[in-house]
Order: sequence, then C-alpha cells, then structure tokens
Amino acid sequence: MEKRVFNFNPGPATLPLPVLEHAQAELLNYQNTGMSVMEMSHRSKDFEEIVFNTEALFKEISGVGDDYRILFLQGGASQQFALIPLNFLSPGKRGAYAITGNFAKKAYEEAQKIGETHVAVNTADNKYTKIPRQEELDIPADAAYLHITTNNTVYGTQWHYIPETNGVPLVADMSSDILSRPLDYKKFALFYAGAQKNLGPAGVVVVGISKKMLEKVPDTLPAIFNYNTLAKKNSLYNTPPTFGIYMLQLVLQWLKAQGGLEAMAKHNQEKAALIYEVIDRYDFYKGYAEKKSRSLMNVTFRLPAEELEQKFVQEAAEIGLVGLKGYRTVGGIRASIYNAMSRKGCETLASFMEDFAKKHS
Amino acid sequence: MEKRVFNFNPGPATLPLPVLEHAQAELLNYQNTGMSVMEMSHRSKDFEEIVFNTEALFKEISGVGDDYRILFLQGGASQQFALIPLNFLSPGKRGAYAITGNFAKKAYEEAQKIGETHVAVNTADNKYTKIPRQEELDIPADAAYLHITTNNTVYGTQWHYIPETNGVPLVADMSSDILSRPLDYKKFALFYAGAQKNLGPAGVVVVGISKKMLEKVPDTLPAIFNYNTLAKKNSLYNTPPTFGIYMLQLVLQWLKAQGGLEAMAKHNQEKAALIYEVIDRYDFYKGYAEKKSRSLMNVTFRLPAEELEQKFVQEAAEIGLVGLKGYRTVGGIRASIYNAMSRKGCETLASFMEDFAKKHS
Repeated sequence: MEKRVFNFNPGPATLPLPVLEHAQAELLNYQNTGMSVMEMSHRSKDFEEIVFNTEALFKEISGVGDDYRILFLQGGASQQFALIPLNFLSPGKRGAYAITGNFAKKAYEEAQKIGETHVAVNTADNKYTKIPRQEELDIPADAAYLHITTNNTVYGTQWHYIPETNGVPLVADMSSDILSRPLDYKKFALFYAGAQKNLGPAGVVVVGISKKMLEKVPDTLPAIFNYNTLAKKNSLYNTPPTFGIYMLQLVLQWLKAQGGLEAMAKHNQEKAALIYEVIDRYDFYKGYAEKKSRSLMNVTFRLPAEELEQKFVQEAAEIGLVGLKGYRTVGGIRASIYNAMSRKGCETLASFMEDFAKKHS
Repeated sequence: MEKRVFNFNPGPATLPLPVLEHAQAELLNYQNTGMSVMEMSHRSKDFEEIVFNTEALFKEISGVGDDYRILFLQGGASQQFALIPLNFLSPGKRGAYAITGNFAKKAYEEAQKIGETHVAVNTADNKYTKIPRQEELDIPADAAYLHITTNNTVYGTQWHYIPETNGVPLVADMSSDILSRPLDYKKFALFYAGAQKNLGPAGVVVVGISKKMLEKVPDTLPAIFNYNTLAKKNSLYNTPPTFGIYMLQLVLQWLKAQGGLEAMAKHNQEKAALIYEVIDRYDFYKGYAEKKSRSLMNVTFRLPAEELEQKFVQEAAEIGLVGLKGYRTVGGIRASIYNAMSRKGCETLASFMEDFAKKHS
C-alpha cells in the first residue's frame, strides 16, 4: 500500500480510496472492452449505460424522483452562476440572492451582468460568520427565484434549514455539501454542485432540475447553455466529461454502500464534532463561524497569532495532515471534511490540535 | 499485459498506451504527494506547475511563441461555438463561416443565436465531400473573423492549406487534427480543440488565442465566458478540469518524445496511406471524400451494400478492430486514426479490408 496523507483540501478534495483503487484497476481496460473508459465513445452503449445509471443512482440517493432531471455538465458551479440567469431571467424578471459568502457573492455578481437582481439578504456586515434566519430574508413575491448557497466553503457556515419562499422557486449552489445529509431535495426547483468536493473529480457539475423549471427555458438561448436542450439529450448534447461521470458513478455507488444519506450524516456529524469539541474546549482556538451556523463540511478557526497558524499548518503537514491553510480573506485554519474524509483523519487532526494547544498555550 | 483493442472511435478516442500506464501507476499517489492528482488543490504549487508546464509545452510544440496564450477550458468545442461570437461579435460586427461539415454548421448555427453572421462558403450541395478552394471563399473585409473547421470528422475531409483572409482574423476549430502536422499556428488569431481526439480525455478544450485578439474582448461579458479574464487567471479563474489537464500534459510529453509535429505528420501520412491505398485498389470500396480533400485523421468510405457494411463492422470487431461505424448522415465506415493510433492498428485494418474485399467482391 502506498503512502496516503489525510487531505483536508477544500476542493478538489480527497476521494474514497476504494473508488480510486477501482478506477486504477480498470484504467487500461474498462470491463473487458479492451479500452480505457476515457477512450470509449460517449455514444457507445457502455458509456450511455454509465450516464443513465449515474442519473438513476443520484435520483435514488437524493430521493428526488422522476419529476427531476439530473444533468452532468461542464464549467463548474461558476458556469451555473451565469446559466441560471440566462435561462430564467427573461426581461422583467429578477433573481433574488442570499449573499452569505464568497461564492454566493460571485453568483450574484455574475447574474448582475445578465439580468435584473435583488439582494434578499447580505451577511457581509457580519463578515459572513452566520446564516440568516428566515425572517431576515426579503424575497419579492414576483422573483424568478431565490438563490442560496447551502454551505459556504470559505467561511465554514451552512444552512441548517430550508428557507420558505412562498412559491418562489428555490435555487441552490450545493457544491460543498451535496449528498452529505438527508435533505428534502424536492423543495429545490434547481440545485447544482461542482463535483470536486463531495462527488468526484473536478470537471463535472451536477445539476438537478425540476421538469416544471425546464418548461420555463426560452428556445432562443444558445443550445450549449439551454437546460432544456441539455436535459432532452440526456447530458449527451455534446461530448461530456466522460471520465468524470464515470468517477461520479463510482462515488455514488460507494456512498450507497456506506448506507446512503442517513449514514453519511451521522458520519459527518461525528467527524465535525471531534474537531469543534477541541475548538470549544481550548481558548487557544477561536471558531470563525457563529455556533448555530457551523458547517459540518468546512471547519474554520483562528489561533492566537499568525505565526502560530503557519507553524500549525507546517507541523500538521509533517505528520500527514495536509491542505489546512484557511482561505486568504479569512486566514487561519480550515479543515474540509467532506463525505470521503475518514473518521480516522478527523481523530488524528483533533489529537494534533490538542497537543498543539497544550504546547503553545 | 491486458487485452487492448485497436480503437478507431472518432472521439473520445484511443490514447497512447504509455500515457495511460503512467497515469495508472501514480493514480493513488502523484509524485509522492500522498494523494491522487485528482485530489490536489488547483491552487497548489504542484498543480499550478502542471498548468504552466502544459501551456509552455503546447507553445513549444505548436511554435506559437509568447504572443499567444494557451487556455484549458471546459464545455468542449461546442461551447467555443458560443464563446467566439459572445467575445467578438459586438453589435455591427459579423462573423464569417465556412460551412464544410457537421460541426462547422453547428458553429454557424450557434453564432446565429448570438450575433450577425455571414456564410463565406457552404459545401452542403456537394454533401460536404470537399474542402473549398481559396477563390470560393467570400470573406467580407469588415468581418470580425473567418471561422473554419480544419478537419471534418464526420465526412473525412481536411483543409490542406491555410486560407488567405487579407487581414480578417482567422479562427479555427481544430478538434480533430490539432498537433497532427506542422502548421503555421501563428496565422490563426484563435484556434481551439476539444481534447478527446488528439490531445487527451474529454472534458478539456484547448484554446490558443493571440494577445491582440484578447484585447478586443468586452468587459461586460460574464466572467466565465470572457477569454480575457480566463487568460489573466491562467485558466484558474475557477476550478479547472484538473485530471484532464494532467492527462493532456502527459500526451504532449509523449508527442514531443515521438519527435514532435514533423514526426507525427510522417506517422499520420503513412498510416492514412495504408488505408487509402486499399480503398483505391479495390473498386469494392468507395471513398467518401474527394481525393484532394481527404483527411489524414478520419478515413471515410462506403461498401457496395449496407448489409456488407454491417458485416464489415461486425467482423472487424471480432478481430479487435472497433469503432468503425460511420456517422449516421454519411453511413458506411469511418476509421479515425489520430496521433495515438498505432501503425500496427492501420496495418491490421488495411489487411482486414483486403481480405474482406476479396471475399465479397
């Protein structure tokens, strides 16, 4: 067995080891076809089967059912920031945005270049340390949608409730917490996630969209940006990122074998608790997010001094805990502990944190 | 060694075996980092090095030099069909299109949804069997660009000259013949190619763009569609398809080790000659493309009857020659023989074709 580190990178992020081993074993010869999955035609039966299975598996795990389509597209969440207003902000319509972090703000700014927008809430004044309460949201009744970011990777905050929109379609960037917990996905008219945190490698973005929402897409859009065209073609309008979709299928199979979303939520809660417990027990550490808004995916905290933070990152790396440096606007430490991060990784980090605090307090 | 077939798929297509073996060997642990290249942060030094090296290597092999930027983007050539008019067809400008095949037509149709267009030539009346001569091209002096498709995958035709545009920027979709021969890339203001034919796996599109062309991009464009933003951020504006770029680097290293474009052109000419020679020697076979326009990448031909074509595809597959079925609008047989297809594969196909013709003539 080769040396593997505990990888706390925020994305691209650690993948389940059995998934990587599976991919490695058949990399030169996919299921006795005599070729790599990367060399297969996207129009072949073998590959179409991968796409159909992956959509079916995603529907099964998320529980959305057949009123939804699951698309496997390119361009990451950042491209969805543009596609959503292109598809749904016809003249006279406006998109409402809950600005709760870095990527939420980017989604809003990109939409501003395309259509009319409205700020439902902006937590910048609180330095994005908290998720707004329902009563803080200003959602115009005529909005084309309300856009939220269910987990804010940079700041380490997460929505622990689904906002009530009174009929306004709810749209969500779930890049950093998709399929990490049971959630009523059917409350979302559209949800999307770059694969590179909880689902697979970079280069695939998953879009779940209700069929009702698909009916609203105007025919005048360029085909490559048109959700309706992409859905009708089963994500095969043009050559899709075939290897990425294959990896996504393997990750979903792994997730199902682990026990699905209930089991994953328990796993994630226990992992996060290990780290938050140390933060709360030692004054040495200061959590960045307000307690009620804490993310189970990205744990952010500061140390008493920047030099100590550098030392922390360096010493952690020396014992195989890597990718812990916080985002530049927040500083400090960020431990990204998505589905594929093992309990062992979090235990090792928590234990290192204890030792480090004792040594430097 | 596992069983590998000769894969004549049009794309995704066969990859060099040493590249796949290299990727397989380090799939769980990239250069002793303790993680897969798929798990590495795109902001890490290790990954930035891959991006910078891949750009430098592409510049070196293509010979474009530092007046160009090489970008690694998502969405395939199909997304470039939309990005090119979005970036360069400001009101009052029109894009000229040489419609010489299936994808050339798609590029034109997508542009029509975005800006003003002009048909420089359309070879549909000839069933796309030939590449137009210089004097057949109608290029308005005020056109924002002339768009050509250097190799038509579906019909098996290829431009064997670079058209003179008298100062109109030349833009080319080179998806199916990029880096297959020496070419004066500096004559193109912009060239692009989906990686899945000559460069790597699906999910990366390479865009070469002159710095002069970058200056023309309007700031008002959504960032994700803005070539200038994408170039300034060194293809790292958002999370790029990291594994695909890594594979592309390996393919470019392989290409360089083979002797670069001169050696690749010789290799490709010899391979194509093996197959065309059989087509020309047996009346049994009828080449689809006009001789002067024949592609060295996709060899298209018909047999006397459809049942024979089916039999041909089936019997070829039985001896490990796969992916030979022609595109539905052309029918017949198509052998895609990109850079990574071995001479041995073409020899085996040519020999099978001889036997098949003798048996059924």
